[in-house]
Amino acid sequence: MSATNRQVRLAERPVGLPGPQTWSIDEADVPEPRDGQFVVKTEYVSLDPAMRGWLNDVRSYVPPVEIGAVMRAHAVGRVIASKHPDYAEGDAVSGTFGVREYAASDGRGVVKVDEDLAPLPSWLGALGMTGMTAYFGLFDVGKASSGDVVVVSGAAGAVGSVVGQLAKDAGCTVIGIAGGPDKCAWLTDELGFDAAIDYKAERVGRRLRELAPDGIDVYFDNVGGQILDDALARLRLNARVVICGAISTYNATEPQPGPARYMSLLVNRASMTGFVVFDYEDRYPEAAAAIGELIRAGKLTPREEVVEGGIAKFGETLNLLFEGANTGKLVLAL
Amino acid sequence: MSATNRQVRLAERPVGLPGPQTWSIDEADVPEPRDGQFVVKTEYVSLDPAMRGWLNDVRSYVPPVEIGAVMRAHAVGRVIASKHPDYAEGDAVSGTFGVREYAASDGRGVVKVDEDLAPLPSWLGALGMTGMTAYFGLFDVGKASSGDVVVVSGAAGAVGSVVGQLAKDAGCTVIGIAGGPDKCAWLTDELGFDAAIDYKAERVGRRLRELAPDGIDVYFDNVGGQILDDALARLRLNARVVICGAISTYNATEPQPGPARYMSLLVNRASMTGFVVFDYEDRYPEAAAAIGELIRAGKLTPREEVVEGGIAKFGETLNLLFEGANTGKLVLAL
Repeated sequence: MSATNRQVRLAERPVGLPGPQTWSIDEADVPEPRDGQFVVKTEYVSLDPAMRGWLNDVRSYVPPVEIGAVMRAHAVGRVIASKHPDYAEGDAVSGTFGVREYAASDGRGVVKVDEDLAPLPSWLGALGMTGMTAYFGLFDVGKASSGDVVVVSGAAGAVGSVVGQLAKDAGCTVIGIAGGPDKCAWLTDELGFDAAIDYKAERVGRRLRELAPDGIDVYFDNVGGQILDDALARLRLNARVVICGAISTYNATEPQPGPARYMSLLVNRASMTGFVVFDYEDRYPEAAAAIGELIRAGKLTPREEVVEGGIAKFGETLNLLFEGANTGKLVLAL
Repeated sequence: MSATNRQVRLAERPVGLPGPQTWSIDEADVPEPRDGQFVVKTEYVSLDPAMRGWLNDVRSYVPPVEIGAVMRAHAVGRVIASKHPDYAEGDAVSGTFGVREYAASDGRGVVKVDEDLAPLPSWLGALGMTGMTAYFGLFDVGKASSGDVVVVSGAAGAVGSVVGQLAKDAGCTVIGIAGGPDKCAWLTDELGFDAAIDYKAERVGRRLRELAPDGIDVYFDNVGGQILDDALARLRLNARVVICGAISTYNATEPQPGPARYMSLLVNRASMTGFVVFDYEDRYPEAAAAIGELIRAGKLTPREEVVEGGIAKFGETLNLLFEGANTGKLVLAL
């Protein structure tokens, strides 16, 4: 067992994009499990746009990460020692273990993962919180069903790429919005999206009008900003706008404008609804079973972008999200 | 029978606030009813913020009023001649008769009104489209129920004042937002609102925090702009924001910012939903019966602000809405 347990702590709250000064790394002892606990060696840490929100000292759906605290993160790893009756050495598990090399856990919020179905990183992506977010956002909040025109932004990202594949399997017409020709080609050629819009090269509003001439039934928003407005302007009657995130605004240092076209909700008798995946915890098994089945049947392709380099690279890896550098689920290998 | 039928037509599309050049008045013959028709002499014309939207040449929930066409308007009046089996001379009726002194109708969309329950102007207000809007917006879209904290803007206006009274009767705590001490006093002293905020004199966000320390369950928005943002910032978990109108923006000549605080929908798992009362046409009798019952029981006070002066005063009377000059339902007496 390694002698040290390196941990990433929040050193100071960032203004704008987090930088090196945002984080500190220290070394603690590797914990020993107490009765009812096990200790996990973290192998992959999840990087999520929502993390940026957790750094702000504001009331939100979870408390902010305190200054000096180990950074909150979902992770997967392997049990290396256990005094917990349900977990044995060698078990692969996922949980909110934080950005550290080793974590003690009493099993709360922990899920055993099945490496026969998919390798560990996928359990942070399509089979993890990412997949749960896509599933409940699309079907429960967005009420997507066969025949709907579904548009998803951040479509080549972790959640977006699963949303689009779930929607295709459900019989929807799927249009993805992503940045750059490679991501767009991946969406249409590999994932089976009906169309993709490269927001860096194309006018999103005009392309939506061409690709969805009768309007949009479900808009799943991961980005906010102008793209949200472009989608609002193209809603169909009784459309549902799902507010999952707004990554384009997370590092803004000035107040960001809201969606100017929100009165489209009135004209189209449409709704815009926010959600937080944690509320669906009781139903994670349902979503995991459905997504697992699609993976087994070859109908859903999980994709992760695994960054090597360990704990020390956490800060710069997180920022890849805000540069739009990743395709699929971004994870850090420890 | 008068020899002429004065009618208000749209002369040109306004930019910003409508002015004298927006309207023209001409004189036509008083129509004779054909078989299956009756002719109504208009007594009161409804003035609605939504009229401003009908003047814009944009896709919306109804077609724009064409240049040269008689201005669309709800009105109440009395049948003066009939070749329709269901309508007799002297019947009091409401319908979308337009801004004119006489109209021919085949009865489509026309409702006979009961003057024993309330005088004619109330059939444009609490018992008319105004009341329908309040009822379906509050209960069907907003899903208000006993114990909810309901906040309504434009609270001393036609729809807002009915929303608040319906919500009080349903067991909600009701906070109204209105302009000026007289309107606020009317809401609390006469209509039984729990509290009123004078947005011209008070900081709405701060007052909402004081008056609704646990947050808002239903926000019924008639005004848009900064007040919508103030309400979004104070939502409670699973709150419903009802988008009924945005009068603060209707005459803007510059693009208006959207609700910057819309991500509160995510944090609070809340929804923002638009609606158009016409969708509930099949259920108007249900709402009219419920509101009529409350009026009969003295639990709902209809109030109209009746402007005298006839057809020639239509344009300037409409603008009173945008000055916030009216309390209750604004109608023009012909």
